[in-house]
Amino acid sequence: MESDFIHWLRERLPKHPRLLLGPGDDAAILSLGAQAECVVTVDMLMDRVDFHLHQCGPQSAGYKALAVNLSDLAAMAARPLAALVSVCLPRSDALEIAQALYEGLLPLADDFDLAIAGGDTGVWDGPLVIDVTAIGQTTDAGTLLRCGARPGDVILVTGQFGGSILGHHLQFHPRVQAALQLKADYDLHAGTDVSDGLSLDLSHIAEESGCGAAIAFDKIPISAAARRLAKGSSDGLTALDHALADGEDFELILAAPPEAARRILKDQPCEVPITQIGTFIKEPGLWRRAAGGQLVPLEPRGYRHG
Amino acid sequence: MESDFIHWLRERLPKHPRLLLGPGDDAAILSLGAQAECVVTVDMLMDRVDFHLHQCGPQSAGYKALAVNLSDLAAMAARPLAALVSVCLPRSDALEIAQALYEGLLPLADDFDLAIAGGDTGVWDGPLVIDVTAIGQTTDAGTLLRCGARPGDVILVTGQFGGSILGHHLQFHPRVQAALQLKADYDLHAGTDVSDGLSLDLSHIAEESGCGAAIAFDKIPISAAARRLAKGSSDGLTALDHALADGEDFELILAAPPEAARRILKDQPCEVPITQIGTFIKEPGLWRRAAGGQLVPLEPRGYRHG
Repeated sequence: MESDFIHWLRERLPKHPRLLLGPGDDAAILSLGAQAECVVTVDMLMDRVDFHLHQCGPQSAGYKALAVNLSDLAAMAARPLAALVSVCLPRSDALEIAQALYEGLLPLADDFDLAIAGGDTGVWDGPLVIDVTAIGQTTDAGTLLRCGARPGDVILVTGQFGGSILGHHLQFHPRVQAALQLKADYDLHAGTDVSDGLSLDLSHIAEESGCGAAIAFDKIPISAAARRLAKGSSDGLTALDHALADGEDFELILAAPPEAARRILKDQPCEVPITQIGTFIKEPGLWRRAAGGQLVPLEPRGYRHG
Repeated sequence: MESDFIHWLRERLPKHPRLLLGPGDDAAILSLGAQAECVVTVDMLMDRVDFHLHQCGPQSAGYKALAVNLSDLAAMAARPLAALVSVCLPRSDALEIAQALYEGLLPLADDFDLAIAGGDTGVWDGPLVIDVTAIGQTTDAGTLLRCGARPGDVILVTGQFGGSILGHHLQFHPRVQAALQLKADYDLHAGTDVSDGLSLDLSHIAEESGCGAAIAFDKIPISAAARRLAKGSSDGLTALDHALADGEDFELILAAPPEAARRILKDQPCEVPITQIGTFIKEPGLWRRAAGGQLVPLEPRGYRHG
């Protein structure tokens, strides 16, 4: 199956001017343009852990595998350049799965002018695994790190949160454009994307910046999916709980000094709405700012890696 | 387990000047020095397909996973810069396996001054998977492609062939130094590394160069392991059969014009012996040159990808 697949893929892959030598030799050669600095990230998605192949199908799994990596580049305000795609394919239907997976990710690659620089495929008796390495480039506007938030900075977020499991985690739009545009046009101190959970990822920025974060519950943009989840279940979790802890929203959390934040909120320059949900404060930890203004400790929740 | 592992890894990973931002944020930032061109490759190794974890242990599996990628960079005469390492870990002993795996690959990374720029780990009920992406750099001497061999060029190989399954495939030394040195100091037209099998990989060079290759059986450097395999088994395969078809030798095949070949063979400038095993010829295909000089068609054999 592998030679059939490689043959199919060579025909299917669009040529890309950045690929000085495309897939087919022992390695590929990639031109980085003027910048001799690159941003690299890798995310591995496993069937029955990060998606359920029999429910979502290989096309959605392929889309997600590339999208989560683009979201990591967005979180750094890096411009996507290239990706390498490795897959462990279940023996039954290996070729069909491999092709559908690429049909899922190639339009996304195209949207972001990303070169598919190579990959590896293997067939086995185990479940589907997709491992994507993405290579990006820093821009003149600089990168967005998790550290760098300062007390007084405003906490901004893109989009809405919660209930991603109902479908968003398979079809989200990585916030690459928003990140590049905001970093280029406004002063930003720190940023990350929300993969593990809004409250947990926010607490990471605070921690790595050596400060705290205080949010106002009534400012959190709650998705319709979070409300649906809260209504439909008997676990007692509210829509807000889902927004704070579900994760896989793949929206951005940003730390902006007050003047930049004011301008961003007024301009709303991106394809996605931007909301202020709180401020960074001196006191370390994560806090809820109650209606009266007092601070109440808040437990960061979300997907904890082990 | 993942947070324990990441904590352990951050302590264990040596600092590297090429990593402007190391693992821990959403992505890593890598300095490529003067060259804004990079060589990328990825190889995915699966338990029970590319190694047998219960036989070789995680340390050898980790070594092999990095070494095969370095061999791909060697095959391009590219200088290794960085690697990203993704692993799917079996739930039982996930942490122990992850640590041993890194203990296997880190000394090799150190040997080649390679920065570990990131990775991903996931725990599941499936077998061990290790996916390594390697990033290298072209040098002023240029790259070594599979195409480029010309009729009259000499076929040179490093090292010995066959019987890799007896242990060599888990502990080979990637021919990075040899490739860089030969490409810098001599005129080379084409090259690859032997992963699928000497005769099959040689036929790829011939095919992609639009010519043929004729080898002399009595010139093939046959490893002691190939001889042991031939002696110990009843499958009728000779040591030469093993040398031609076993694969995973991870030695280099090079196409050198006669004058460069003569100098290389005389100088023997590398840590590993270099042998002439034949010549590229006009007539497409793979051939054996018999003692009388006549050409006999030869079936390329080795590991065929499906």
